Amino acid sequence: MRNLLLTISFDGSRYHGWQVQENAITVQQTMQDAIERITGSRGNIVGCSRTDAGVHANMYCCNIRTESEIECSKFVTALNAVLPEDISVMKCREVDFEFHARYDCKSKEYIYKIWNSPVKNPFLHKYSYQHKYPLDEEFLNRQAKQFIGTCDFSAFCASGSSVEDTVRTVTNAEVYREGDMVIFKVEANGFLYNMVRIMVGTLLDISAGKIKPDTIDEILLSKDRNRAGITAKPEGLYLNRIVY
Amino acid sequence: MRNLLLTISFDGSRYHGWQVQENAITVQQTMQDAIERITGSRGNIVGCSRTDAGVHANMYCCNIRTESEIECSKFVTALNAVLPEDISVMKCREVDFEFHARYDCKSKEYIYKIWNSPVKNPFLHKYSYQHKYPLDEEFLNRQAKQFIGTCDFSAFCASGSSVEDTVRTVTNAEVYREGDMVIFKVEANGFLYNMVRIMVGTLLDISAGKIKPDTIDEILLSKDRNRAGITAKPEGLYLNRIVY
Repeated sequence: MRNLLLTISFDGSRYHGWQVQENAITVQQTMQDAIERITGSRGNIVGCSRTDAGVHANMYCCNIRTESEIECSKFVTALNAVLPEDISVMKCREVDFEFHARYDCKSKEYIYKIWNSPVKNPFLHKYSYQHKYPLDEEFLNRQAKQFIGTCDFSAFCASGSSVEDTVRTVTNAEVYREGDMVIFKVEANGFLYNMVRIMVGTLLDISAGKIKPDTIDEILLSKDRNRAGITAKPEGLYLNRIVY
Repeated sequence: MRNLLLTISFDGSRYHGWQVQENAITVQQTMQDAIERITGSRGNIVGCSRTDAGVHANMYCCNIRTESEIECSKFVTALNAVLPEDISVMKCREVDFEFHARYDCKSKEYIYKIWNSPVKNPFLHKYSYQHKYPLDEEFLNRQAKQFIGTCDFSAFCASGSSVEDTVRTVTNAEVYREGDMVIFKVEANGFLYNMVRIMVGTLLDISAGKIKPDTIDEILLSKDRNRAGITAKPEGLYLNRIVY
């Protein structure tokens, strides 16, 4: 029995997130179907994170325990041959039998893409969120710095979430521009449900004057979801990097 | 009666090209539906070019004669509000009543995107052609220069095409790289059917050693479609710029 760590990327547009669900196509199920076709047996594949419907991944990791003896490089080629075009396996390597893609994850990085133009881009509607009014990325970058640190992120967690420990350590948060695209990048040891999307919504609400500048620290201390901004749409969100 | 010139862009993935067809969704028909919703009357919209199924446009021009008195800037907003997300109207301006989007076009520029990596990119399968083996863009750029000039492009025209005058003037042809993306860019006063895709196929066949280097001049002189390369897939092709 071997434990294989797969690094994949996927366009989440067609999927109802990672996690297997009844009556909806998910990335996990599509991966399991492909692995079953290659190895002859369906095992349980462990993902590094749940993702929401429509969310993308430039990098996503998952591990699978298998009796298959197929060499890692051949496993990559075989999986890519049977997977749909919107999921790509980039790497495969054998890891300790105890390795767990979710529990052993040290940090994750997300990016959120905002298409900042009054003109809609027909190629990007599934791959970014359009914000028509000019954004000041330097101002937003200074605001985003308030997310850095170890604290209780309850105010930035979807209400109704049942997680007990809501303390996370954010090691980087920044906003920058590439042409008409404004990008929010954030790295942490873990994220609460909808945390990145609420961070982005809060930055956009600050930009629109709906939330006062320099109050993110206060919002964090309040632990009150109602004081933070909207939950930004899923299309702009990408899991970008996983560190073990 | 006014004559309006619309500049649009579209993701061609879902469409069977520009031209109205029976039993297939096209960009022209989708534009006419939108114009009918806004102005109350369907007129004939004239496009600058036919495009094949799956081909994209960063810039496409079309004109429509209409009795509508809606201001140009409002027409843009209204059309974008009713059009699907994969077609965007960027500009509208009033032109001479005699102006014709196809006949008055002075030159067109196309680009063709080749994703040059052994690893498939799940975000680009509808937006580029994947070529797994390394391409030497400087070598291909030198080969592409042979396309520049005024000559009979019959060898680079889909067989069965009924066009009479097969002489075109290519004013620019180049190959360059942006990271893993290799791009072919070509500008001419007009293009024959499948001309850009056969040019790209020929460059790829030269790269693969199936066609001898430095023979594009000879292939042009031969006027023989069989001596040129394959017709590259439509997904990588973008109409990029229209000059009037």
